[in-house]
This record gives sequence, structure tokens and C-alpha cells, in this order.
Amino acid sequence: MANFQVNILGCGSATPSVRHMPACQVIDFRDRLFMIDCGEGAQLQMMRQRLKFSRLSHIFISHLHGDHFLGLPGLLSTLALHEKGGTLTIHTFDEGARILRQIMAVFCRETSFEINYNIITPSRAVIFEDHAITVETFPLYHRVPCAGFKFTEKPKPRHLRGDMIRFYNIPVSRLEDIRHGADYITPDGTVIANDRLTTPADRSASYAYCSDTVYNPAVADDVRGVDVLYHESTYADDFAAKAAPRGHSTAREAGRIAAAAGVGRLVLGHYSKAYDSEEPFLREASEEFPDVIAAREGMKIDLL
Amino acid sequence: MANFQVNILGCGSATPSVRHMPACQVIDFRDRLFMIDCGEGAQLQMMRQRLKFSRLSHIFISHLHGDHFLGLPGLLSTLALHEKGGTLTIHTFDEGARILRQIMAVFCRETSFEINYNIITPSRAVIFEDHAITVETFPLYHRVPCAGFKFTEKPKPRHLRGDMIRFYNIPVSRLEDIRHGADYITPDGTVIANDRLTTPADRSASYAYCSDTVYNPAVADDVRGVDVLYHESTYADDFAAKAAPRGHSTAREAGRIAAAAGVGRLVLGHYSKAYDSEEPFLREASEEFPDVIAAREGMKIDLL
Repeated sequence: MANFQVNILGCGSATPSVRHMPACQVIDFRDRLFMIDCGEGAQLQMMRQRLKFSRLSHIFISHLHGDHFLGLPGLLSTLALHEKGGTLTIHTFDEGARILRQIMAVFCRETSFEINYNIITPSRAVIFEDHAITVETFPLYHRVPCAGFKFTEKPKPRHLRGDMIRFYNIPVSRLEDIRHGADYITPDGTVIANDRLTTPADRSASYAYCSDTVYNPAVADDVRGVDVLYHESTYADDFAAKAAPRGHSTAREAGRIAAAAGVGRLVLGHYSKAYDSEEPFLREASEEFPDVIAAREGMKIDLL
Repeated sequence: MANFQVNILGCGSATPSVRHMPACQVIDFRDRLFMIDCGEGAQLQMMRQRLKFSRLSHIFISHLHGDHFLGLPGLLSTLALHEKGGTLTIHTFDEGARILRQIMAVFCRETSFEINYNIITPSRAVIFEDHAITVETFPLYHRVPCAGFKFTEKPKPRHLRGDMIRFYNIPVSRLEDIRHGADYITPDGTVIANDRLTTPADRSASYAYCSDTVYNPAVADDVRGVDVLYHESTYADDFAAKAAPRGHSTAREAGRIAAAAGVGRLVLGHYSKAYDSEEPFLREASEEFPDVIAAREGMKIDLL
């Protein structure tokens, strides 16, 4: 269990290869796992990376291409055989929910858990929110409707200073408000400013996922300032002419989005199988943006 | 390219594991590949085992459980991306064809090859036949309708004895009939018996595949005398009580079928993930039948 960690389960494109699995990531966020995209083989990658099925609570599907979706039927069948309980929410376009219901009606008639479909669209919207995190969609620009996802941890409470709490003899009933920034007013009416009673909260982290998209500066607006940006880089400069017609970006273009958006770190992935090294991707992206890493299966990226 | 070789791509059961992939085999038969069942990950196993997509001509699906079917959508998408041509025939129950058409309509709208669906039933029938091979279904006894497959190579022509052909000065136009057993009648009316002109044909081989089934002696009748029998052995004796209620067999029961059917060799597989060794399967089956091997991913079994 991690505080906020991105696990790369697959970072290839279109077809699996002996080098890379199709798209899948799992965010290990406190007590839950959030999966993003689910290419064929995702269930096996979860086992290999010791990500427990029982903790999986949400799956977010960026678009309806097989390399981002076709791991779902097998994963859901296996979850049922593992007798996972609770609710699993699948965030997908309406056509994704429709075909998944049809597949499940043949291959997995009964599940031990409830599947909740949340129909999303490729537009700007909050699609999930709880006390700890907000998940938003934003549009990507691919050959079919496609959504990016932004995961933003909510602000955390400030840390109480035990010495000051004792000094002012503050009742326990007031502590929760003080953690959230309230001042304290003593019985004789004196205002004790919050920053005398607390130290700053731990920082909150944010992550954005851009699965399949042509280079579009509008994406930078939607991922502005995130700590870590995953942006597809299907091609390097040598195949730059193929990128846009196929609805994809180069590593250099991913670097430009990262620079324009002022993110903390860029993660590259969705590599074409034409490449047998990630070196050109890294080299060319880093000419545009300094802090860049190349995703590979099994990689864990801690945001906190 | 092999003459008649069974390739094991997956020999696990129900869910993939870090030890075994779900069910899939490929028969490498002269210029073509015949796939039997297509669990998730089959396309990647083909790549790993260097079985060329372009040679795949038929896929036989034994029943509609995910671990025997859910590799198909991804495989077909990848075949299309690889621009495979020609015709691919998928032999499956009607519900399998229906759901596959629905999935393809979402994830693979256009293919570079023609898909021909041949609707089969879990009964005794010849479902494919050409000059070289016959493929038959026979009933298995699982929780859902399930078919076994028997692949029987057709009799081959006898070998001509060059010395005798020259001695009798036999015209070329007669040779094909003589290869197929005809006697030769000389111009003066003398009958030369075929066995003076030829040596025996190479032997023809046969293979039977029993994917998921409870122990049922009727299966032995349907696989009688095959050179190699693959028979599921989901459990060893220790879990024998679970086998029949779940529609499965033990390794010992597979051995009994092999012995009753008088096959040449028995191949075990479809192992429950409860086991981390194939040793108990091999030991118990070999108490019933002597020539037994345990399938594992990557194994090649030559029938000729």
C-alpha cells in the first residue's frame, strides 16, 4: 500500500510485443487501486506486480481501442473467480459499457462484486470525487473519442503543534477545525492565529494521463502544473511524419506539452513496436523538457 | 514449418497465473497453422513461439468460457494490424460467433482478411476436411456445451520404387494411380501387383484434444487409437472430489481414458492454479497409462 504511486503495467502501443504490454497503469492510492486503461494481459501484470485484486476499486478507460480495453473481460472474470467483493466502478464511454455488458453476459454471468458503470465523455468534467481525491476528464485528440484523466489529491490537514495545543489547553473538540486552518479563540476572547498552533500540511500531489493523442497545445492547459504527466510518445523524430495522421505524438511533442504545462516530471510511453530502445524518446523529449523518464513494465513512480 | 506438430501456448485453467497461460494450442500442419482455443495472451504466445500470424488459417473453439476464448478479440485485431490476408475460419458455437461479431464491430471494424464463421455443435461431426486432413468434433461433458476436436491426417500415397518403374517402363500418366495402390497392367496384359512397384506409405498421424470435461468413458470411444491425446487434468487425486462437480477430470482419470482408448501418448494440461508442480499429475496418470507427458508453455510435440 502506497500513498500515491503510479505502477506501469503496460506501455506499448497497438499490439503487444515481446518487449512491451499494451496500455495499463494502476495508481496505488492509500487503501485503493485505480486502474487506468486495461490492455490484454492486465490481470497477469497485476499478479506479477503484486497489486491485489481485492483493492481494485475504479477502472478508467480512456478510449475504445482494443489495446486499452481488451484486458477487461478477462480481468473481470478473474476477479469473480477470486471472489472479490464490494463495488467496482468502471468509467467508460457509453459504447464501452454496452459491449462490456454483452461480453459479461456470455463469459461472466455472475460476479461476486457489483459493477457500477459511470458513463463519461471526452470533455472537461469531474467524474469522481471523495474526501481524498478528485478525478477529472479532459479531451484528447485521437482517431476516436478519447479522454485524458487527471488525479488531484485534495488538500491535507495541517499538523497540530502539540506544545502549543497543551500550552493553550485547547479542547479536543476544536482540534479538527484547527487542522483545517481555523484560529483558536481563548475563553477570554484572545485570538490565537492558526499558524502559531500548526505547521503546514504535507503537500498534495497530482497526476495526469494522456493516453493517445496528437500533439495539441490545448492539452497543456488541462494538465497545467501537475507533479507527474504521462504523455504518449508513440514515435521519435524519425517517424514524426506518421504521428499526426495516426492520431499520435512524438516524444519531442510530449516534451513540449510538459514544458508548456510546467509539470514536475514527464513520463513517456505508448511506444511503437518499431523501436527496440527507448533511448531516442528520452533524448529527444529531454531537449524540450529536462525531467523526463521512459516508462517500462514494472516501474513504480512515487508522487509523494 | 512442421509436418504435424502440436505447440502448447497455454496449459493453465480458469485464470492465468505467473506459472501458466490459459488454454491455447497451435497445430503446425505443413503450410498452415490450426489454433485450438484462444485464451487471453494467445497472440503474445504466438510471437514468443515464433508461430507466424500469416500462416494461421483455422481457429477451433471448444467452448465459451473466457479462458478458452478471450484471446480472440486481441488476436484478430493484431492480425488486422499485421495486414494478414486470405481467409481465417473460426469454428465456434453460434453464441461465440455472435459475441465475436459484436466485439469486432467495436474494436476491429475493418480487417485485412476475411473471417469465415463455421458454426459447430458439441456432437459427432466432420467440421473441416481437405486433401490432407479431417477435423471432427465429439461431445465433451463440462458445465457448458463443450466439444473435443480430433485431427486425422489422411492416408498418404505409397512410395514408388524407381527401379521397378524403369524396369517395366511405366508411363508417367499411370504413376499417380500406382501411388494410390493401383496395380499395373503391361501392354501384353500381365498384372504387376502394386506391392512390387511401391513401398508402403508414410504413416498418417492423429491428434485429439479434450479441453474441459468430467471423466466420461464415452470420450475413449471418440479418441480411440489416436497417436497423441491431450486430455485435461485440472486436478490430482488430492482434489479428486472437486473435479466432477466443477466439470473437470483428474490426471488419473485422463490416464484411464488414454488406456481405454489405446492411444499412443497422453499429454496432460489445464492444471488448476492450486498446484505449483506437475509432478503429482504425471505420477498419478502414469499409474494408469505408461506414456504420459505434462504440457508446459513452449512445448512442441511432433506427431511425425
